[in-house]
Amino acid sequence: MLTLHDCLESGNGHKVRLLLALLGRDFRLELHDIHSGGTHRPAFLALNPNGKIPVLQLEDGRCLPESNAILCYLAEGTAFLPEEPFARAQCLSWLFWEQYNHEPNVAVARFWCHHLEMTAERRVLLAKRQAKGHAALKLMDDHLTARDWLVGDGATVADIALYSYTSVSAEGGIKRDGYPALTQWLARVEALPGFIAMAPWNG
Amino acid sequence: MLTLHDCLESGNGHKVRLLLALLGRDFRLELHDIHSGGTHRPAFLALNPNGKIPVLQLEDGRCLPESNAILCYLAEGTAFLPEEPFARAQCLSWLFWEQYNHEPNVAVARFWCHHLEMTAERRVLLAKRQAKGHAALKLMDDHLTARDWLVGDGATVADIALYSYTSVSAEGGIKRDGYPALTQWLARVEALPGFIAMAPWNG
Repeated sequence: MLTLHDCLESGNGHKVRLLLALLGRDFRLELHDIHSGGTHRPAFLALNPNGKIPVLQLEDGRCLPESNAILCYLAEGTAFLPEEPFARAQCLSWLFWEQYNHEPNVAVARFWCHHLEMTAERRVLLAKRQAKGHAALKLMDDHLTARDWLVGDGATVADIALYSYTSVSAEGGIKRDGYPALTQWLARVEALPGFIAMAPWNG
Repeated sequence: MLTLHDCLESGNGHKVRLLLALLGRDFRLELHDIHSGGTHRPAFLALNPNGKIPVLQLEDGRCLPESNAILCYLAEGTAFLPEEPFARAQCLSWLFWEQYNHEPNVAVARFWCHHLEMTAERRVLLAKRQAKGHAALKLMDDHLTARDWLVGDGATVADIALYSYTSVSAEGGIKRDGYPALTQWLARVEALPGFIAMAPWNG
């Protein structure tokens, strides 16, 4: 059976759990505490030298880090990863955009709001991340104004990867008022058979 | 013919030009000045709403942004993107790692050293990026100690994506002394038939 090394607060982890749920795949969940340095100890670094969850571990022990690479691996051969070359490339384009433009702003703002003491200096940095997070949500909203899904006519790994942190953006002070197409798209993802929501924050 | 919207100083652009050269593919190069706001004007935003190069434009006008998505699109069906599912996923894992852990540190340090006035405040931020850049190079060096290539037995999109900014890391104050396996790997990429180097910085 597949093992997912994960942490329930993580949107990067939720993406993978969401896809596994939509695909109806069984897996074993192994939770790690990312706040106490657990992912930087030798036992975890043997799974992922980069010291981050999620990591997908195959039955034979091989490990795959990076949430979006895991999504593509699990989605191969299903409708969540189109066969048609340009549609597939568009999915990848959204996944790379997510890791560079969306996650470092929307997810990091959420993490800071929950975990870090809000000094005056950090407040300035947080405001910058929030502004870039809004720019990311605006870009998605513009794109979704004329479309139901990010790529093509159905849900793909692009929608799954972008759902998780977008759905909790307000926890980082990035409200979604004024992004109507984005709000409708979130509801569309939530209506997929097998959908599971992000876990409540316990930090 | 393919058109590549690009800027010669960019390692993200170089990755794509390098793969096109290794594949022996013809393309038209359209250069944009990323420093004067050219990529944020309406004509460019119609190609990529995210306002960034590189963008691959197909003959029919369709556009694909995100350097690593472009690499996968061009490499499909060649040895640079393995068919075997786990090897393919490992390539993607390196590509996502590159955009989250390597580029924002190694490339951004280089950009700041060339373009931004070095205030005391910025010097502190630069030192943090350089430290994370070193951590990225160390992780690659450790991985390459027992291997010739990042994934499998030959060059893949993972090697191409990670070559460009690694080869000019010293321009951002991140020297490669002490990473012998990394240095040998760079030479291995440079020996590939058709290899082209990063253009000299004109900033």
